[in-house]
Amino acid sequence: MSSIHEECGVFGVFAPKPMETAQITYYGLYALQHRGQESCGIVVNDDGQFCSHKDLGLVSEVFSEDVLSRFPRGRMAVGHVRYGTTGGTSRRNCQPIEVNHQKGKMALAHNGNLSNTDKLRDVLELSGAIFHTTSDTETIAYIITKERLKTDSIEKAVSEAMPVLDGAYSLVLMSPRKLICVRDPYGFRPLCYGKTRDGVYIVASESCAVRAVGAEVIRDVAPGEILEFSDEGVVSHREHCQEKEKKICIFEYIYFARPDSKIDGVSVHLSRVRAGRILARTHPVSADLVMGAPDSGLDAALGFSQESGIPFGIGLIKNKYIGRTFISPEQGARLDAVKIKLSAVEESVKGKRVVLADDSIVRGNTIGRVVELLRDAGAKEVHVRISSPPFLHPCYYGTDVDSEENLIACKHAVSEIAAMIGADSLGYFPVEKLSSLTEEGGFCSACFDGRYPTAIPTKIRK
Amino acid sequence: MSSIHEECGVFGVFAPKPMETAQITYYGLYALQHRGQESCGIVVNDDGQFCSHKDLGLVSEVFSEDVLSRFPRGRMAVGHVRYGTTGGTSRRNCQPIEVNHQKGKMALAHNGNLSNTDKLRDVLELSGAIFHTTSDTETIAYIITKERLKTDSIEKAVSEAMPVLDGAYSLVLMSPRKLICVRDPYGFRPLCYGKTRDGVYIVASESCAVRAVGAEVIRDVAPGEILEFSDEGVVSHREHCQEKEKKICIFEYIYFARPDSKIDGVSVHLSRVRAGRILARTHPVSADLVMGAPDSGLDAALGFSQESGIPFGIGLIKNKYIGRTFISPEQGARLDAVKIKLSAVEESVKGKRVVLADDSIVRGNTIGRVVELLRDAGAKEVHVRISSPPFLHPCYYGTDVDSEENLIACKHAVSEIAAMIGADSLGYFPVEKLSSLTEEGGFCSACFDGRYPTAIPTKIRK
Amino acid sequence: MSSIHEECGVFGVFAPKPMETAQITYYGLYALQHRGQESCGIVVNDDGQFCSHKDLGLVSEVFSEDVLSRFPRGRMAVGHVRYGTTGGTSRRNCQPIEVNHQKGKMALAHNGNLSNTDKLRDVLELSGAIFHTTSDTETIAYIITKERLKTDSIEKAVSEAMPVLDGAYSLVLMSPRKLICVRDPYGFRPLCYGKTRDGVYIVASESCAVRAVGAEVIRDVAPGEILEFSDEGVVSHREHCQEKEKKICIFEYIYFARPDSKIDGVSVHLSRVRAGRILARTHPVSADLVMGAPDSGLDAALGFSQESGIPFGIGLIKNKYIGRTFISPEQGARLDAVKIKLSAVEESVKGKRVVLADDSIVRGNTIGRVVELLRDAGAKEVHVRISSPPFLHPCYYGTDVDSEENLIACKHAVSEIAAMIGADSLGYFPVEKLSSLTEEGGFCSACFDGRYPTAIPTKIRK
Amino acid sequence: MSSIHEECGVFGVFAPKPMETAQITYYGLYALQHRGQESCGIVVNDDGQFCSHKDLGLVSEVFSEDVLSRFPRGRMAVGHVRYGTTGGTSRRNCQPIEVNHQKGKMALAHNGNLSNTDKLRDVLELSGAIFHTTSDTETIAYIITKERLKTDSIEKAVSEAMPVLDGAYSLVLMSPRKLICVRDPYGFRPLCYGKTRDGVYIVASESCAVRAVGAEVIRDVAPGEILEFSDEGVVSHREHCQEKEKKICIFEYIYFARPDSKIDGVSVHLSRVRAGRILARTHPVSADLVMGAPDSGLDAALGFSQESGIPFGIGLIKNKYIGRTFISPEQGARLDAVKIKLSAVEESVKGKRVVLADDSIVRGNTIGRVVELLRDAGAKEVHVRISSPPFLHPCYYGTDVDSEENLIACKHAVSEIAAMIGADSLGYFPVEKLSSLTEEGGFCSACFDGRYPTAIPTKIRK
Repeated sequence: MSSIHEECGVFGVFAPKPMETAQITYYGLYALQHRGQESCGIVVNDDGQFCSHKDLGLVSEVFSEDVLSRFPRGRMAVGHVRYGTTGGTSRRNCQPIEVNHQKGKMALAHNGNLSNTDKLRDVLELSGAIFHTTSDTETIAYIITKERLKTDSIEKAVSEAMPVLDGAYSLVLMSPRKLICVRDPYGFRPLCYGKTRDGVYIVASESCAVRAVGAEVIRDVAPGEILEFSDEGVVSHREHCQEKEKKICIFEYIYFARPDSKIDGVSVHLSRVRAGRILARTHPVSADLVMGAPDSGLDAALGFSQESGIPFGIGLIKNKYIGRTFISPEQGARLDAVKIKLSAVEESVKGKRVVLADDSIVRGNTIGRVVELLRDAGAKEVHVRISSPPFLHPCYYGTDVDSEENLIACKHAVSEIAAMIGADSLGYFPVEKLSSLTEEGGFCSACFDGRYPTAIPTKIRK
Repeated sequence: MSSIHEECGVFGVFAPKPMETAQITYYGLYALQHRGQESCGIVVNDDGQFCSHKDLGLVSEVFSEDVLSRFPRGRMAVGHVRYGTTGGTSRRNCQPIEVNHQKGKMALAHNGNLSNTDKLRDVLELSGAIFHTTSDTETIAYIITKERLKTDSIEKAVSEAMPVLDGAYSLVLMSPRKLICVRDPYGFRPLCYGKTRDGVYIVASESCAVRAVGAEVIRDVAPGEILEFSDEGVVSHREHCQEKEKKICIFEYIYFARPDSKIDGVSVHLSRVRAGRILARTHPVSADLVMGAPDSGLDAALGFSQESGIPFGIGLIKNKYIGRTFISPEQGARLDAVKIKLSAVEESVKGKRVVLADDSIVRGNTIGRVVELLRDAGAKEVHVRISSPPFLHPCYYGTDVDSEENLIACKHAVSEIAAMIGADSLGYFPVEKLSSLTEEGGFCSACFDGRYPTAIPTKIRK
Repeated sequence: MSSIHEECGVFGVFAPKPMETAQITYYGLYALQHRGQESCGIVVNDDGQFCSHKDLGLVSEVFSEDVLSRFPRGRMAVGHVRYGTTGGTSRRNCQPIEVNHQKGKMALAHNGNLSNTDKLRDVLELSGAIFHTTSDTETIAYIITKERLKTDSIEKAVSEAMPVLDGAYSLVLMSPRKLICVRDPYGFRPLCYGKTRDGVYIVASESCAVRAVGAEVIRDVAPGEILEFSDEGVVSHREHCQEKEKKICIFEYIYFARPDSKIDGVSVHLSRVRAGRILARTHPVSADLVMGAPDSGLDAALGFSQESGIPFGIGLIKNKYIGRTFISPEQGARLDAVKIKLSAVEESVKGKRVVLADDSIVRGNTIGRVVELLRDAGAKEVHVRISSPPFLHPCYYGTDVDSEENLIACKHAVSEIAAMIGADSLGYFPVEKLSSLTEEGGFCSACFDGRYPTAIPTKIRK
Repeated sequence: MSSIHEECGVFGVFAPKPMETAQITYYGLYALQHRGQESCGIVVNDDGQFCSHKDLGLVSEVFSEDVLSRFPRGRMAVGHVRYGTTGGTSRRNCQPIEVNHQKGKMALAHNGNLSNTDKLRDVLELSGAIFHTTSDTETIAYIITKERLKTDSIEKAVSEAMPVLDGAYSLVLMSPRKLICVRDPYGFRPLCYGKTRDGVYIVASESCAVRAVGAEVIRDVAPGEILEFSDEGVVSHREHCQEKEKKICIFEYIYFARPDSKIDGVSVHLSRVRAGRILARTHPVSADLVMGAPDSGLDAALGFSQESGIPFGIGLIKNKYIGRTFISPEQGARLDAVKIKLSAVEESVKGKRVVLADDSIVRGNTIGRVVELLRDAGAKEVHVRISSPPFLHPCYYGTDVDSEENLIACKHAVSEIAAMIGADSLGYFPVEKLSSLTEEGGFCSACFDGRYPTAIPTKIRK
C-alpha cells in the first residue's frame, strides 16, 4: 500500500539470430510493470535499423496486438517502464531514449537518478548541447555520445562516461551491433542477466522478468560493471572503475521489487518475511490475528505470525480492478475512495485484537483510514507494524521519497503518529536492524538515516 | 484460478432526491467487476427520462471521466456488468436493456439464465415479438411488458411474469417512478440491499458492493421476493409466489463471490476457510507448506493450514497487470503464458513438500502447468487439494460450466487426473460434505451431482 | 450551402458468388456520404449468417482497414448512411436494422420517413411489440415481420406491408437468400440499380454510387415496385400496388443529390443548370460576374451565366477540411465561423456587380454573412439568386425542412429578406416553374406549396 | 489533382494581452491545412511557460475540443502543419520544435528545406550535438541556439545563423518574450503578416490564414527580412542580410497556395486564370467545352475559356469525403480508385470535344485514368492542357518533386505522353512564359529548368 514509487524498470534482449525480440521484451515489461506505470517503450534493432514504439500508459495500453505485430524481427531489443517523479508526465520523456548521432547511434533505457544532473546539464548546454526532455537519461546519453566521438567503441565510451556520472543508474543500451548493460559503482538499483536454452541473453532490472520469458538467471551485474553482449560473446569490464562499497537501495527489498525476485543473491520474499520476524521480536504484542495490508504487507505479516505464533489471517480485500484510470470520488462526497479500494472481511476481524503489517507510512492518511475500516468491521484492537523505519530524508536516487515537509515522521513522534492513525500501538522496523534484512549488507538507507553515499544536489531545475 | 465464469452482476440505486446516482453506480460496478468483465452499462432515471451508456469493456474502460460527467443527476439508476457465455460478445447484448414501450418503459439488469428461454422466445416470436439481442434478458423484458399491458403496475406485471420464467434470475429494474428488485423462487443467484445514512437505497448482487458505496446491508432479498422502492417506501411482495426450497448456487461460495461478501447470511470467506479445513480432514497429507493458487485458493489454503497444522506460505506470485487486453504468446513459441502470469517463489518451495489448494479443475491444463512451475522451483512433492467436487454436469443457470466432453472429470478417474497434472496426490472436496460449507443449506450443486432443480433445456438456439 | 439535410442513403449488393461485398458497399457508401453524415453501417450476408458493423461517424471514421478486413466474404450486403432529424443522435438508431426473428431474419436499410409511423407504432405496441429504437425504420421492420408470419416469402411480406405504410420509403433489405429493394408508391426518394461486368447487381439511392463501384446503371426502380434478386434472377413485382402519380422530392434535384447522378432519367446537373437559366430569365439583372456559393450554387450560377451572358467567375473559396469535428468559435468571440469556412477571392469581386447563386435560404443567417464577405472584398453590388422557391411548409418525407416558425420566408416578404441579408436584390425560383426543372414532372414540392401527397401526422412522439 | 506536395505551413500570434491564442492558431492552421496533412502542432507561450500539443493527423483529428480547452491563455502561440517528404512519418518529427536550452528556450516552426542540411548536421554532431529528429528544422534550431550562446538577443542569434543556412526557410519562432519571423534571402516560401482590430499580430505562410482569423494583411515579409514582435512593437531587421534576387517558388502560384491568397502582391487566383489564358494562346484547339480537373484545374480552365471563347463547364465531380484514412481498393481488384474519387458528368461531356485543364503531370497515371473516364462518359475528343511546364528536375527547397527517374517528362516526348495518357492533344505551359504568371518576376523554377539558385546537396542522409 506504499505510495512511494520506483522510477523505472529496464529490459534488454540479445539473440543469436533475428527473432521476435519485441514480443520477448513485451512480456518482460509486463513482469516489470510494478516498477513504473506511467509510460513504456520498446526499441528493436533490426540489423542496425532501430524501430521503436513508446507512449504514456501501461504495457497493456501502449502495445496492442497491432502495434506489436508491426515490429520487425531483430537480434536485439531494449525496453523500459517508467514512473516519472520529475519532469512531468510527458510523452517526450518516454524511454528508451534514441540517439541518431552519426558516430553514436544508440537506444538507452535507464533506471535510477543522477545526483549531479543539473551541473552536468549546465556544462553540456553551454558547450552546445540542446536537450529535448527533462529527464536525466538524456544527460547520460549526451555524455556517452560525447565520449564516443573520442573513442572507438561504445563500451569504451560508457566506461569513460562513468566517472562523470554521480548517482544511481542501471542502464541497458544498444548500439547497432552491441547490447551493453551497466550498473553504477554503488549498485543503487538492481540489474541482472540470464540466458534461455536457445542462447538468447536477457538483461532485466529484476530476476522475475528474466524468468518470465523462460530464461535462467546467470547472476546479478556487479556494481560498476559493464557487460557487453556481441557476436564475440559476453565480455565483462570492471577494471575501469574504482572499487566502491555496494549501496543497493534497501527499499527495493522492503517494497519496490516483486517478492519472487532475488536481488544480489538475496530473496526479496525472504527478506520481507525476515522483517516481519524482527518486528515481532522488537515490537511484540498480544493479539488474535496477524494480517497484512494487501499486497505489500503480506510477507511481513507472515513473518510476524511465524515468529509470534499469532495466527495469520486474511482481513482485507483489495479491489483488483482499480487502476490508472479509476476516477476518484470528489472530495467531500458521500463516497469514500478507501472503502471502494479496500474492504474488511468482517468475519475475520470481528471481536479480534488485530496486528496489521504494512511496508511504510508516508503521510499517514491511508493507513489511518484502513485502521478505521478494521474498527468499523468490529476489530477490538488494531496494532500497526511497519516493516521499514520512518522516512526522514528525501531520496535522490530514483524514488519519490519526498521533501521533509511531506513526511509525517519528520514532524511527529511515533506515539503521536499512532494516535493520528487511530492505532492502539505502532511499531516501526528499527533502523539499526536493517542490516539483518539481507545476509549481504552494503545498502543505501539514506531515506531513513540521512547517510547519502554521494554529494546531494543543491537545486532542482524545473 | 478457475476458468469458470459468472454471467453477471446487477446494481440499483433509489435516492430520496436527485443526486449523482450514476457515480454511485459506477463505484458499485467496480465492486462487482469480478462477476463480469466483458461489458457494462449504467442507466440513470432523471425524472422519467432515461439516460444510458453501455459498451464492451471493463468499468474502467467504458466509463471515462467525461462519459460519467455527462450523466444527469437522477433519483434512480441501474447498472450491470456482464460476462456472456451465449450470444457472442456483442455490443448489442450489453445491459441494462432498455424498453421504450408506451405502457412499459423500463430499464432491466439481469443476473442468471433462464432454462426455458427458447420455448418462451418461440411463442413470443410467433405472436409478433421481434428480438434484437441473443440474450434471455430480452425474453424477460418482453414477458414483463406483455403483462404490463394487462395490469396497472410494474410490480404486478413482474409478479404475473414470474410463473412463466423458469431458471435463474436476479433482476433490478426501473420504471419511470419505481425501482424493483426480484430474485427467482429458487434464489439461484444472490441479491441483497442496504441503505446509506442519507436514506439512499442500494440493491446489489453482492454485499461487498452495498458496502463499497457507503451503505449498510439490510438483508438478502428472499427467493421469490419482489421488493418495490418508490416514494411510498419499500414494499415486499411474497404472496404471489409458491414457496420453493432455496437453491442458491454453491459455486458462489466456492469461487464466484468476493470473499468479503456475505450471501444469505453466510460469509464467503469463512465458507472457503471451512472448505479448506474439511479437505484437510478428508484428504490429509504429510507436508511442509500449504499454499493457495492466487487468488482463488488462498482462503482454502488458510483453512487447510489451520486444520492440519502445516505452515501456511506464499509460493506463487500472480502478475496483477495481466488483464483483458493481454496478448497471449503464440502456440508453440518459446514463451509460456503460465510463466508470464504466475511465478513460483523459489525460496518458499525449494526442497519442500507442498500442498497446493485451488478452487476447481475444469480441463486440467492450467493446474498441470502450475504443478510444473512448483517442481521447477524445487518442490519435492506437490499435493493438489481442490475445494470443490469434480465438475460432471453442465450448468443452465448462469455460469459457463460446459458440456460434459470438455470436463476432465467426466472422462478420467481422480488418479488419472493426478497423473495428468503431475501431482503426487489429488484430493477433491467430497460432494456429500457440500452442506457443511454453509450453516444454512439449500443450494444448487447440479454441476457436481446432476440434480437440476428445474427442467433443463432440450436445445440451445444459436 | 443549404442547411437542409437528407435523412439517408441506401446501398445493396447481390453477387453470383461469395466475394468482398463489404468492400464494395464501403465504396458505395463513400459515394452516398452526402446523403447522411451522422452514422453508417454495413451488414454482410455470409451464406445466411449476418455480420454487421455500424456506428456513429463518417464512413471514413467507422470503417478502418481493420474493421473492414474482419468482414467475411459473402454474396450479399446492405449498407446505409444516416442523418437523423428525429430520435436524437444515438448509436442505437444506426442502420441497417437487423431482425433475428425465426421466420423473418433480415437486415433493412431505409431512406425516407413514414407519415403514419406514430399510429402504426401505437397499434403494434398494444399488440405486444417492443421497440428498441426511435426510428420509423423499426416500424417498417415489424410490419414486414408480422406479414412474414402469415406468408411464405419475404417479397410477399413486403407487398402485404406496403398498403399499411404511408409516406416515403426507399428500402434495401436482405433475407438469408434474397436481396429486395422497394420504392414507395409515390417514389418520394430515388432508388436505382445496375450490374457489373461480373454479374454483380448493385442497388443504390443514387446512380453515382452504382457507377462508383464499376457497375452500369440499368434503370431507376419504379414507384411502388418491388425488385427481388435471388438465384432465380431478378424479378419485378408491380401488380400488388395501386397506381399512383409519381411524387419524387423536387429538392433531390435542387440540392440533395450529387450532380453527377441521374434520377428518374433526368440529370441532376442539367436540372440545376436549367434552374439557373430560368432564374436569369425571371430575375434578370445587370452585372459583371456570376458566381455560385460553393459547392451547391455552382451549377445554377453556370446556367445563369449561360442564359444572361454575364461572365462566370470564382469568387468564394470553401475550406475543404472543415468537417464534422470542427470546433466552432464561441459566440461573441473575435473569431467568425463564416470567415473560417469561406473566403472571398478579392481579385474576382473587387469593384464588380456580382450575382451570387445559391440553392436555398432557410433562416437567412449564412447567406447574409456571405453577402457581407463579398462586400468586404469590394463587391459594388450583390444580387442573390436562389434556385428554389421559398420554404413555407415542413417536410414529413425524410428531410429536415423545419416547422414554420423557423423558416424566414414564412414571416417576411422577399423584399424584407433582401434587406435582412444585405442584398441589392433577391430573386427566388418561381414555384410555378418547378415543372420545368425536369422533363418528366411528377414531383413533391410540398415544402414550397403545401400540397402534401399523403395525410400528415398530427403529433410527433418523442 | 497534383500529387506534388508542399512540405509545410507556419503560423504565429502575438497579442497585446493574454488571450485564447491556441484557438486563434487552431483556426489559422485550418486555413493552412492544404500545405500539410500529415501532422500538426501548436505551442502556446503563457508568460514564458510553453505548453504544446502535436501529433500525426489533420488539425481536426489532432485537436479535439478537450485538447484545445486545456491550453492556457497566453500572449503568443506558434503553429505548424506538415507534410514530410523526408524522414518518414514519425510523431517525433511533428513541429513546432521546442528547445529548452537555459539560454535559448524557443519554439520553432519551419516551412521549406535547407539544401546544406547534411553538411551542417555533420559539423554539429562532431562538435557534440545530438539530433532527435530527422528533419532539417532541428538543424536550424541548433544553429540558432549555438549563436544565442554568443549573443544577447534571439533576433541577433537568428541574423547570425542566416549566413550559414542555405536553401528555403520561412520561420516563425517564439522565445519567452518575443515572436520572430524570418524569410530566407531568396524568399523561396511565402510569409506574410497582419493585424486584427484588437492589435493582435498574425504571421502566416499565406494571406488566407491571416484573413481567416479576422486580421487584415499588412504585407509580405521580405526575402532575408527578420521581423521581431515584442512589447517594444514590431521591428524589421534587413541590414544583416546580403541582398539577393528573390526566388519565390513558382509552383506556389501554380498549385500549392490557396487561390484566395495573395503572395508577394500577386493574386494566386489571377495568376492561374492568366496561365489558362496563355495556354489558350499557345496551345489553341477547336472544342465545345473547357473544364478543369477538380479542384486544381478550375482557375486555369476559366482562363482558357475566357481567352478562347469556348464555354466553361463542369464535367467532373470529386468525392469530397475521401481523405487521409480512405482505404484504397486492392491492386487488381474489380474496383477502381479513380472512379471512386472522381466521376464524370455524362450530360456535360457526351458527344463533346472537351478541353481538360490541370496543374501538372508527374507520373501520368492519374490524368490518363481521367481522360478514360471522360471518354467512357461519351467525350468525342479530349485535349489536355497543363498549366505548368513539364517537371524535369528534382526540388530541394521543400516540395516533393522527385528524382528524374520518376518524372514522366524526363523520359518521354510530349507526343509520347499524349499517347500514353490517351489524349487527343496535350499542351504544357511554355517554360519561357513563366514570367508572365506574376507581374513581379523573381522566382525559382528549377524543377522546370534546372536553374537552382543555391548549391545542391550531394547526398541525402537517411
